[in-house]
Amino acid sequence: MSACHVYRFPMRDPDDMSGLAGLLDQGKIAASDIKAVFCKTEGNGLNNDWTRHFVDRAVRDAIAARGGADAQALRRAVLVLISGGSEGVVSPHMLVFASAQSTGTEPGLALGMEIRDLAPGDFAQRNHSIATADMVRAAMKAAGAKDPSQVGFVVVRAPADPARGATSPRVRAAVSLGVAQALGEIEGEIDEAAFLEDFSKFCRRVFVVARDDTTTQQVIVLANAPGGTKGLRAAAGPLHDPLDSPGVAAVLAKLGIDATPQASPEASARIVASLSKGDPPNDGKIRGARHTMNGDGDIHSHRHGRSAYGAMIASVIGHSYCFVSGGAEHHGPDNGGLIALIARDEGYSI
Amino acid sequence: MSACHVYRFPMRDPDDMSGLAGLLDQGKIAASDIKAVFCKTEGNGLNNDWTRHFVDRAVRDAIAARGGADAQALRRAVLVLISGGSEGVVSPHMLVFASAQSTGTEPGLALGMEIRDLAPGDFAQRNHSIATADMVRAAMKAAGAKDPSQVGFVVVRAPADPARGATSPRVRAAVSLGVAQALGEIEGEIDEAAFLEDFSKFCRRVFVVARDDTTTQQVIVLANAPGGTKGLRAAAGPLHDPLDSPGVAAVLAKLGIDATPQASPEASARIVASLSKGDPPNDGKIRGARHTMNGDGDIHSHRHGRSAYGAMIASVIGHSYCFVSGGAEHHGPDNGGLIALIARDEGYSI
Amino acid sequence: MSACHVYRFPMRDPDDMSGLAGLLDQGKIAASDIKAVFCKTEGNGLNNDWTRHFVDRAVRDAIAARGGADAQALRRAVLVLISGGSEGVVSPHMLVFASAQSTGTEPGLALGMEIRDLAPGDFAQRNHSIATADMVRAAMKAAGAKDPSQVGFVVVRAPADPARGATSPRVRAAVSLGVAQALGEIEGEIDEAAFLEDFSKFCRRVFVVARDDTTTQQVIVLANAPGGTKGLRAAAGPLHDPLDSPGVAAVLAKLGIDATPQASPEASARIVASLSKGDPPNDGKIRGARHTMNGDGDIHSHRHGRSAYGAMIASVIGHSYCFVSGGAEHHGPDNGGLIALIARDEGYSI
Amino acid sequence: MSACHVYRFPMRDPDDMSGLAGLLDQGKIAASDIKAVFCKTEGNGLNNDWTRHFVDRAVRDAIAARGGADAQALRRAVLVLISGGSEGVVSPHMLVFASAQSTGTEPGLALGMEIRDLAPGDFAQRNHSIATADMVRAAMKAAGAKDPSQVGFVVVRAPADPARGATSPRVRAAVSLGVAQALGEIEGEIDEAAFLEDFSKFCRRVFVVARDDTTTQQVIVLANAPGGTKGLRAAAGPLHDPLDSPGVAAVLAKLGIDATPQASPEASARIVASLSKGDPPNDGKIRGARHTMNGDGDIHSHRHGRSAYGAMIASVIGHSYCFVSGGAEHHGPDNGGLIALIARDEGYSI
Repeated sequence: MSACHVYRFPMRDPDDMSGLAGLLDQGKIAASDIKAVFCKTEGNGLNNDWTRHFVDRAVRDAIAARGGADAQALRRAVLVLISGGSEGVVSPHMLVFASAQSTGTEPGLALGMEIRDLAPGDFAQRNHSIATADMVRAAMKAAGAKDPSQVGFVVVRAPADPARGATSPRVRAAVSLGVAQALGEIEGEIDEAAFLEDFSKFCRRVFVVARDDTTTQQVIVLANAPGGTKGLRAAAGPLHDPLDSPGVAAVLAKLGIDATPQASPEASARIVASLSKGDPPNDGKIRGARHTMNGDGDIHSHRHGRSAYGAMIASVIGHSYCFVSGGAEHHGPDNGGLIALIARDEGYSI
Repeated sequence: MSACHVYRFPMRDPDDMSGLAGLLDQGKIAASDIKAVFCKTEGNGLNNDWTRHFVDRAVRDAIAARGGADAQALRRAVLVLISGGSEGVVSPHMLVFASAQSTGTEPGLALGMEIRDLAPGDFAQRNHSIATADMVRAAMKAAGAKDPSQVGFVVVRAPADPARGATSPRVRAAVSLGVAQALGEIEGEIDEAAFLEDFSKFCRRVFVVARDDTTTQQVIVLANAPGGTKGLRAAAGPLHDPLDSPGVAAVLAKLGIDATPQASPEASARIVASLSKGDPPNDGKIRGARHTMNGDGDIHSHRHGRSAYGAMIASVIGHSYCFVSGGAEHHGPDNGGLIALIARDEGYSI
Repeated sequence: MSACHVYRFPMRDPDDMSGLAGLLDQGKIAASDIKAVFCKTEGNGLNNDWTRHFVDRAVRDAIAARGGADAQALRRAVLVLISGGSEGVVSPHMLVFASAQSTGTEPGLALGMEIRDLAPGDFAQRNHSIATADMVRAAMKAAGAKDPSQVGFVVVRAPADPARGATSPRVRAAVSLGVAQALGEIEGEIDEAAFLEDFSKFCRRVFVVARDDTTTQQVIVLANAPGGTKGLRAAAGPLHDPLDSPGVAAVLAKLGIDATPQASPEASARIVASLSKGDPPNDGKIRGARHTMNGDGDIHSHRHGRSAYGAMIASVIGHSYCFVSGGAEHHGPDNGGLIALIARDEGYSI
Repeated sequence: MSACHVYRFPMRDPDDMSGLAGLLDQGKIAASDIKAVFCKTEGNGLNNDWTRHFVDRAVRDAIAARGGADAQALRRAVLVLISGGSEGVVSPHMLVFASAQSTGTEPGLALGMEIRDLAPGDFAQRNHSIATADMVRAAMKAAGAKDPSQVGFVVVRAPADPARGATSPRVRAAVSLGVAQALGEIEGEIDEAAFLEDFSKFCRRVFVVARDDTTTQQVIVLANAPGGTKGLRAAAGPLHDPLDSPGVAAVLAKLGIDATPQASPEASARIVASLSKGDPPNDGKIRGARHTMNGDGDIHSHRHGRSAYGAMIASVIGHSYCFVSGGAEHHGPDNGGLIALIARDEGYSI
């Protein structure tokens, strides 16, 4: 069963689990249906952001207390992704991805998941890309997606080990290119020399987070496939720079939503999830105009970057539930990033 | 002579006067033509932002050294407006407003200026509104604008005196409502009780900065009036919240530019100036979604706010030369703000 | 039994409970012996410091899992005080206060605790002072202290309710003055008009934290009383400003330690706990010299203040396990604060 | 003539030149007497601290307007050192070093200055050390110091060129070791391999700032030499870590001042100048206790470090006019730094 529902809840505080708890307590889903929980929290999203650990624990405890596996086992079974940094307009929120009863054989949102433990020696190496590509293929199969064209986008929580050279940026490089290969976006063998060097190689449908708390890699494919949840669709596409509102509009168009310049209130309400990757351009310029995000001693460049991408995306989708994230290496074009959206079709309430 | 040219220069550093200096050194304009210089600098835009003083001095010295009045006299004669805070995508830049040879009697961009010393006891009081309204009428006349409908927008550098209760927010309230009255946007007498209380009263075409370094008020009207610079136009309008990209698009439409969602590269290049006002909503929400801009102990709400407004506006106009500014009391609707744009018509290079 | 041991553990992370866990797992103390746990964590110590909630929960879970009451009941029974902000040299650490077997009738460190639920309507009012004074007397009795001169200092975790006017500063005022009265430091009735107004009235031996998560007030008296832990002593005293190293040295002297200018390595190792209160002076000056802590838009005044007090104290005591805290209203003299120390006598290893 | 007076002025704002102006306007010194002006300003002291440029200009303009060489020529003739960052207790202030009439042949404070243009290719190389050592010898001679033991300390404003590898840290390494050699503190040839590698090699009497705005190096030797200003003395010494108040006390002792733990008010008033170097320890620990200064995403480690060193030093000298500075490579022991003081002898008002 691969049909997938996506629930979004606002969060009053980093440990506000009321939305998730209500979902379970009201019997809308069972704890075992939960495949992934993403939280955009209001920590600083930097090295010393302890909301990550705090919320991670709160999520697992909330599920465990409501019939899930124990909190520790949930680490492996559920992709829990806590991302700090709700700068600017970005509103803290939670996304819950849960298995749902298939509504037939017509196409709709389907989720396939693949979980594997990787050898630490392979992290951030060519083998990491190869393993990732293989996992994507398995997850596609689980989602019922026979062809890469059916894949909306892929989310990966990947293991890093900075002490051994598997830094987060390099892990994201290896994983993104592995996904790109599995989706047929790049051809030929994976070339390790391209990692963090040749940014002309990138994936157009991936969202990778690297974490050094595990050796487990979790891959989720969100596809538009037969047997999926009817009336719910996923799509993604590249952003060429932090001003690329047309890039956001292009992905919305795939989901049947116009943004000229913004989705209408009715259409905006149908946009369930917005995940993005993007950083302040390294060359210090946006379309030739100097930006100051990388030279501000008082505000970290990641915080500047998330604020900028969040405001741009929100101005197109019409609401501020934007799951913005930095670390966009090989996610979309150099000095740009990526937008991934899930929306309901018109007339569906799901 | 009221025809007006507007020049925009990127700034490499807060004291990069090369653009202004080139303009004068190459004889494109004379020092005495300069009516206003606006600089968006990369200080923090807060209490301890010393770039304001630094750049203010650099601007006046640059003009004085090239045939202008002495640096001190320029304080009165030229509206020098230095605004710190280039967060997110916002690019530091300078705008120079200069008198130009009229190109005929057809409508075009015209500038009228009025300068008066105000009694400190009147600052932020009803009399401040009344004096402002009178100054706007005089400046309209100087601009050759017979009717408020010809006014694109008004810029005021107004005196404040916080020690005597004339705080910057209250000064902006008094001045905005004075401008609104002069432009016929609100009716009846100015009601002091509305200052900072009744935000349903506001101006849709004003940009006020309050400064406690002077008793002089400078008012500039930018109008589309006979004898103005042909092919150059000004327009303004309200922003309902920090996501109001349709509000920006509506003002662009008045200038003949489509943004669906963004001005084309060609049209973007015609947008010479973008001035905006806007703050993080006080009620802590944007379209019902909680924002965290007012409760972040490490990044000031003003810095969050400028970043958000800048990214939203840039994503519509297609470039990041956005003169964003906080302190939007009675500038546009409550918890929103205002956008003022100057653009060239198609086919004009000016 | 009022004898008290104090354990200090460094913390590698906000949720590093290894020291506390070891204490319990190795049977050095029982969970029910624990009276108080104080953690100085590395959050920003401001409004959006979520480490407070995170660590509070980790502490209670760690105790509950090792034979304590359930995590919720521990809220009332144990004074758990999590304080964010380890700026500058300040090192994150944990202090555990536990009941111990009395070693006889000679004087030594004794702990008396009193816990009461207060009426919310009384918070921050004169009744709050009166109740606090009464609680201090009860806790003194529990500690076996017959005379205020035997009291080293008092720690209070007091309830606040900002929505009803019982702001944290006002709660600290009410509580400090209540403690001062119980200790005979001020005479006569409590005068509510002095709260946050008359700073000539203050307590010289108190450390109050106000929290809006409870209606329970917890008072701990640390005394040097018969039957206490021999070889361990507590003392406190006022700091006149952030430079008052002589004030720290004076309290050390009471504990038999010289600091000229710093405790020797051997003596420094005997200083188990250092709790302090202090803020950046409101008048913007320290001994006539201007400071900039209150006007920095990028670093909050509390963060500046903790860093300053921490470095000063550490430079006298010779190590950086300084539990610094802002919010020093009526704790020591105006624009100053307070230092409270616990040290072992020479020759005791405890 | 090498006798030297040192004047200290508080600064109300970064461009508060009133102290310097008064000195010149009242005829206490002539503009040509000025050898050096140091300002500790309230910018953030980081990459984007524009107060450096602002104050540098204000200082030179103030001198030029009062009979000095023109502002540009002053760049070379006067060592103008603007240092941002007045965190914590540190109070913004200005130090003016001026030639004075010799008061005889008895020892007193003498200043010798040497100015040379260096070849950019030599910056941060062994040749930089050699040239510096030679300049120190020349400046010693100018100061009338025949023996290194007469040297209190040396201040160098050295040229850097990061684009060519002459980064500020490496320049400070080369210069410090050059000074150490000239003062006989290290023996043998300068070994370039030691730069930023072997921190057991360091200077105990140097204060270097590296700037990339010049090719000119300025060296000032402050000595206690015959013919110097009687009653004024300079001394310096190493700080072993940010808690090293005994290190500060040891230098005070050389100047005849006791600090147990703090200089008395009378003695504190005689301490005219306090210059220090120090950074947060790289190993993340201070005397074995973890500090968090290097992992805080919201406050830069330099800002943490200056606050810590400033508070420690102020707590010993008894006032907060501390010219704290980061970048202590080879200035005192590894993970420590250096303190340099100038004080009046008892009974001198100078």
